[in-house]
Amino acid sequence: MTWDLLNIIGTIAFAISGALVAMEEDYDLLGVIILGLVTAFGGGIIRNVLIGIPVDSIWQQGLLLKSALAAMGIVFFMPSNFIQFSKKSLHFFDAIGLSAFAIQGAIAATSMNHPISAVIVAAILTGIGGGIIRDILAGRKPVVLREEIYAVWALLGGLIVGLNMVNSLVDYMILFIVLVCFRMLSVKYNWKLPHRAL
Amino acid sequence: MTWDLLNIIGTIAFAISGALVAMEEDYDLLGVIILGLVTAFGGGIIRNVLIGIPVDSIWQQGLLLKSALAAMGIVFFMPSNFIQFSKKSLHFFDAIGLSAFAIQGAIAATSMNHPISAVIVAAILTGIGGGIIRDILAGRKPVVLREEIYAVWALLGGLIVGLNMVNSLVDYMILFIVLVCFRMLSVKYNWKLPHRAL
Amino acid sequence: MTWDLLNIIGTIAFAISGALVAMEEDYDLLGVIILGLVTAFGGGIIRNVLIGIPVDSIWQQGLLLKSALAAMGIVFFMPSNFIQFSKKSLHFFDAIGLSAFAIQGAIAATSMNHPISAVIVAAILTGIGGGIIRDILAGRKPVVLREEIYAVWALLGGLIVGLNMVNSLVDYMILFIVLVCFRMLSVKYNWKLPHRAL
Repeated sequence: MTWDLLNIIGTIAFAISGALVAMEEDYDLLGVIILGLVTAFGGGIIRNVLIGIPVDSIWQQGLLLKSALAAMGIVFFMPSNFIQFSKKSLHFFDAIGLSAFAIQGAIAATSMNHPISAVIVAAILTGIGGGIIRDILAGRKPVVLREEIYAVWALLGGLIVGLNMVNSLVDYMILFIVLVCFRMLSVKYNWKLPHRAL
Repeated sequence: MTWDLLNIIGTIAFAISGALVAMEEDYDLLGVIILGLVTAFGGGIIRNVLIGIPVDSIWQQGLLLKSALAAMGIVFFMPSNFIQFSKKSLHFFDAIGLSAFAIQGAIAATSMNHPISAVIVAAILTGIGGGIIRDILAGRKPVVLREEIYAVWALLGGLIVGLNMVNSLVDYMILFIVLVCFRMLSVKYNWKLPHRAL
Repeated sequence: MTWDLLNIIGTIAFAISGALVAMEEDYDLLGVIILGLVTAFGGGIIRNVLIGIPVDSIWQQGLLLKSALAAMGIVFFMPSNFIQFSKKSLHFFDAIGLSAFAIQGAIAATSMNHPISAVIVAAILTGIGGGIIRDILAGRKPVVLREEIYAVWALLGGLIVGLNMVNSLVDYMILFIVLVCFRMLSVKYNWKLPHRAL
């Protein structure tokens, strides 16, 4: 249940984020759908490969696919003033996908009794996959490697799940919302980690 | 039979398209072979991952590999006037790979009794994989996201296979040739889909 | 034993090469860790997918993960004069990863009784995967497609393993060191293959 909910949330959010990037780059209708699909399902495929779920199980999820297509259709045909709003909220949908998939990766690694270091890495790689595919395909620098704090929130999610601090559906939803909020705060206030140039 | 024929056609076509892109970018002999191999087998690996075939089965296809290497060798050592011709026909070999792999993806999804929406998405993602890998590696904008109609033809192939409108080897070959022709007509007459900028 | 040793050497080397590229690009602390992780485990995942090892087995390798993290930590907090040295030696760590993973790919293909052509292609694709992921993510042209001889050494490793010319751990280690040396000599003396522009 938790898994399915996070799955549908993450897939739709990544689909919308891909569609928004495609519209920013002035792609045509099918380009919008393709980039949305590749982002949504590419992220899911990376997640499945990383955590050992058979990849072709994604084709059985007709509901998921229809939801993603419907969400992209709504974005494409939305009135202009809403799109202006949505464009600004690219970071928002991306944050939702990041958070949902990071928690899924952590749950999967925990259920296989892996050590906490592996749970954290699984959370990070699972969370960032969709955004990386989207940005590489659109010829952009991957958001994960940009300035504001991004993957730290996947890391934090992995840590909290790995320490068994969340148990119920409600707990997971709270964790999910908290991670999305932290990511959005990072964007708003331009939070950065220390860095060191060569 | 249909499957094997499409497989060898698609793999050789993607190998040649990768080799042609590498020669356009002035890569050396091994660069040409590498980009050809990565395009041909990367596309096949994406197809296998997406439709649930064990990936390491590609190593058992010695004939496929030798055909791809032979095709790239012919392209590399071809007289200049033929290469000029081949350069222009990059779109042609790419169209062949797109069409062959799209039909394979659709056949695989159909044989697993997936709904038609999944068959169409499988056709699109399987068809566009090889070209995306080739263009990303060569530092180009993926052809699937450029102006002329591209993925629509994979979508159409998925729709026709999903509706069980093709049954015999001859039917599949006709569908394959029709898709290649439509893609080439899109390039020649610069057919575009509607688009909407933000 | 040979396998595990090559695995840990290759993973740490790719992790360091990813961290160095990230520091050259002035990424922050987590960006350094992420690019290092994605390079190290992305290369390993590509290797696993290509040679048919279950991908989620990477999460069981806690030692491997800790070694990679420790190596990246050392690189990040190293005094500046050492980093200057390390920056120049990006090619060195990349060569180690290339050589270790190429030999692994060749061993795996040989153990499955594939023909020598498949062993060579497995060596090449397995060896170059990590470096390709790293360079694409950092927005660079993949090192495999640049001027100096690179993938030839993976090809040579595949050929030697495929011909059963190495049998003991000592043999494999000598082959590994020879391949690294040849790659470094290619960089130092700017060895190139013939090429032909269109």
